Amino acid sequence: MNYRMIACVTSRILLAEASLMSLSLLAALAYGESPWPFVLTMFLLALSGLPLGLRTPKDTALYARDGFAVVASAWVLLSAFGALPFVFSGDIPNFVDAFFETVSGFTTTGATILTEVEPLHRGVLFWRSFTHWVGGMGVLVFVMAVLPMSDGHGMHLMRAEVPGPSVGKLVSRMSESAKILYGIYTALTVIEIVILLLGGMPFFDSCVHAFGSAGTGGFSNRNLSVGAYNNPFFDVVIGTFMLLFSINFNLYYYLLMRRFAEVWKSETLWTFLGIVALSVLAIAGNITSMYGSFFTALRHAYFQVASIISTSGFSTVDFNLWPAFSRAILTVLMFIGACAGSTGGGVKVDRLIILVKASVRDMRKMLHPNAVASVRFEGKPLPERNIQGVHTYIAVYLMIFVVSYLLLSLEGFDLISTFTALSACINNIGPGLEMVGPSGNFAAFSRASKLLLSFDMLVGRLEIFPMLLLFAPSMWRRRRLIRRNPF
Amino acid sequence: MNYRMIACVTSRILLAEASLMSLSLLAALAYGESPWPFVLTMFLLALSGLPLGLRTPKDTALYARDGFAVVASAWVLLSAFGALPFVFSGDIPNFVDAFFETVSGFTTTGATILTEVEPLHRGVLFWRSFTHWVGGMGVLVFVMAVLPMSDGHGMHLMRAEVPGPSVGKLVSRMSESAKILYGIYTALTVIEIVILLLGGMPFFDSCVHAFGSAGTGGFSNRNLSVGAYNNPFFDVVIGTFMLLFSINFNLYYYLLMRRFAEVWKSETLWTFLGIVALSVLAIAGNITSMYGSFFTALRHAYFQVASIISTSGFSTVDFNLWPAFSRAILTVLMFIGACAGSTGGGVKVDRLIILVKASVRDMRKMLHPNAVASVRFEGKPLPERNIQGVHTYIAVYLMIFVVSYLLLSLEGFDLISTFTALSACINNIGPGLEMVGPSGNFAAFSRASKLLLSFDMLVGRLEIFPMLLLFAPSMWRRRRLIRRNPF
Repeated sequence: MNYRMIACVTSRILLAEASLMSLSLLAALAYGESPWPFVLTMFLLALSGLPLGLRTPKDTALYARDGFAVVASAWVLLSAFGALPFVFSGDIPNFVDAFFETVSGFTTTGATILTEVEPLHRGVLFWRSFTHWVGGMGVLVFVMAVLPMSDGHGMHLMRAEVPGPSVGKLVSRMSESAKILYGIYTALTVIEIVILLLGGMPFFDSCVHAFGSAGTGGFSNRNLSVGAYNNPFFDVVIGTFMLLFSINFNLYYYLLMRRFAEVWKSETLWTFLGIVALSVLAIAGNITSMYGSFFTALRHAYFQVASIISTSGFSTVDFNLWPAFSRAILTVLMFIGACAGSTGGGVKVDRLIILVKASVRDMRKMLHPNAVASVRFEGKPLPERNIQGVHTYIAVYLMIFVVSYLLLSLEGFDLISTFTALSACINNIGPGLEMVGPSGNFAAFSRASKLLLSFDMLVGRLEIFPMLLLFAPSMWRRRRLIRRNPF
Repeated sequence: MNYRMIACVTSRILLAEASLMSLSLLAALAYGESPWPFVLTMFLLALSGLPLGLRTPKDTALYARDGFAVVASAWVLLSAFGALPFVFSGDIPNFVDAFFETVSGFTTTGATILTEVEPLHRGVLFWRSFTHWVGGMGVLVFVMAVLPMSDGHGMHLMRAEVPGPSVGKLVSRMSESAKILYGIYTALTVIEIVILLLGGMPFFDSCVHAFGSAGTGGFSNRNLSVGAYNNPFFDVVIGTFMLLFSINFNLYYYLLMRRFAEVWKSETLWTFLGIVALSVLAIAGNITSMYGSFFTALRHAYFQVASIISTSGFSTVDFNLWPAFSRAILTVLMFIGACAGSTGGGVKVDRLIILVKASVRDMRKMLHPNAVASVRFEGKPLPERNIQGVHTYIAVYLMIFVVSYLLLSLEGFDLISTFTALSACINNIGPGLEMVGPSGNFAAFSRASKLLLSFDMLVGRLEIFPMLLLFAPSMWRRRRLIRRNPF
């Protein structure tokens, strides 16, 4: 492990968090609230971050396992410091609760331990939603965009932080790619804020809901989430933006570069939109009798499907009261999740496509043992090791799910609440069903379960391996085992 | 496809069913009941089976896809004919219901649509349980044991019918292996009947419960299942035999051959027993307060864990009333299932071991990209294509599960009932939780859902691919695509 380089990167991350927090400080000041919760946290961040960055490392090489270690520890540290404003302001006095809420923010989960959010300080509410925006695109990507690093080394960080099986460089320099991605992300967020403002939503609320949909997080500043406005315009706008932020950002870059053919031919995009369309229609048909008209049903089905498959977790109605078929569809969508290379969570549509295609190929091989067939994905033959990667991902994902489920069931809650609470956390969605449905929250879980669920949220956001490999003994061994990668 | 050879094998299977049914005919006669339901069915079986077998095929070669086709269609036919005694006797007047019950029998699931079993005719009850015994070891294996076929061709049938990723030949001739397996199976069943008789169970009941545990089926002739006797001796005996029948039968052969080292070194055996021990202790601790004493709790925990992990489905108590943690453990055990090469169902312990080991290997590779490591299983390096086979199995299994779950949720039942009904069927267990718990049944499901669940039971028993490949267009294409396997 290159500990010096890790310390240097960690230092930058902590300082980046301090600077990002300044926006929340401004919000607090603008609403005439006490600035101290933020000032104090920023001071502590600087106090921890500056000494770490004092010694410039001679060897700037970062290996795969360094990348995992940096990303995992960075996210835990960010959440621990990010929890402090909640504690200092008195809005969430207990640190474990505040940590859960912050992990939920940075991982863009949106699961909350709060029964009511409206009484919170404005500055704290802003910070709570802003963590979604920061976490959506990744903190290390931000650091790379702002503070350029020697190239090639950033790749391991970006790979470890950006969701999805296929992180492609858009342009040859990693830091340039990071800048382009953050540029697109910021532009789309600003567009959403403006549209919501035009629709008559207050500025503060527009920011909160734009951050929540951009990061596919789902924290609202209203107890009833987007349902509080009962405004079809907001439903459609926020629903559509949640979907826009669930699509691989590379496609926006291609659009800007006028490479329309690549967008048009994207399998993942059409599969994703197909799943959305089918689910919306199926649910709308299923709930029409509840809402009187098919169009009202369609509006709510569209919003809820967009919210769940994008792994945001906003709600306009209490879908926990929907019939079994609709609830079952939403449960399945929880696991499908968004497209790789977006801010959304879940298993990812790309992985599912690869899984289905590889399975069809393997079954064909059973019937015709000599047939040679490679799996094609997005127009290119997919290397076998990528297929294996998807299989390993699913296998480890299932194992973590089962172990977490057993531990969580010790709470003694009903199994639907337990199952969907876990699904909502590990897939970074937010609300589940029953106790943790749109009108519920995670307050009833014990501190131990909250820490377990925080771990699961990080597992989901960082795509399992950085978090899990923290526990691998060989991760912390000296260089003995490391040889240069000859490829 | 070698249709003539398939017809010939199918003919033998139908005639085998007719002869196996004669035992139930005897039972009916012994209890002074009408023999006609059985006589009529046997006549129809002979009427369909004899013409099919008239023309001896010149080419006796059976390819992989022939094997799949024979096994899948044989099991559907067996169940369709096997349902007739229920209909003819009037015990289950509707054919779809009777078909569900018979599929449930042959696949050793034990899920029932009957609210009460005690009023049924004795002969029918005997047949109902005897299907477990026949289905447990496999009908084609029986045919191979009785009517020897040219070797090499039987392998594809046996591979397609015997559960588990690794069907090894015990001895060089396939029909000899089949005979040895059936010998062990019969001997163990007779021993269980004798022990139950010695404990004071009536002869009829002893047979029913021995068939049910031998096939890991779970049909009882008592409404309260094994709990009706409230006898700790029966609980321990049946519980232990359910576990014995969940172990790879090869190990019994090794015991007979005095190859003790191979038994002692069996990873699967010790992993299986470890999971059982841990689950029993965890549940016993969790339910002690319900039963007053730790030993009563231990007895019920032992029986229920043995019943679920062996995928039998007998019960001594209504475990649906147990606390969430115990119910969660049982739900997980439903999916783990028994060992490969046994009569039990589920995903199989062997596959889980391979899955865990392959995942650990792959994660190690992420940290140390140049490390070369193969997965070792049962003391031998496992070929990569076997690992891939397990991954494909899990992937397709999950897909079928999700699609069935969505279709089943259209019934509008609560999601725990829906989920565990499906889990209980696809893993060949029998009872689930809530509506389909030990004190419930599958009567409330619509005919369409019963057919879907019958399909899922067959999918589970035949390990997915025979059933699924029935729907593959290339399965039914002419030989064009088939080349001789050079390996």
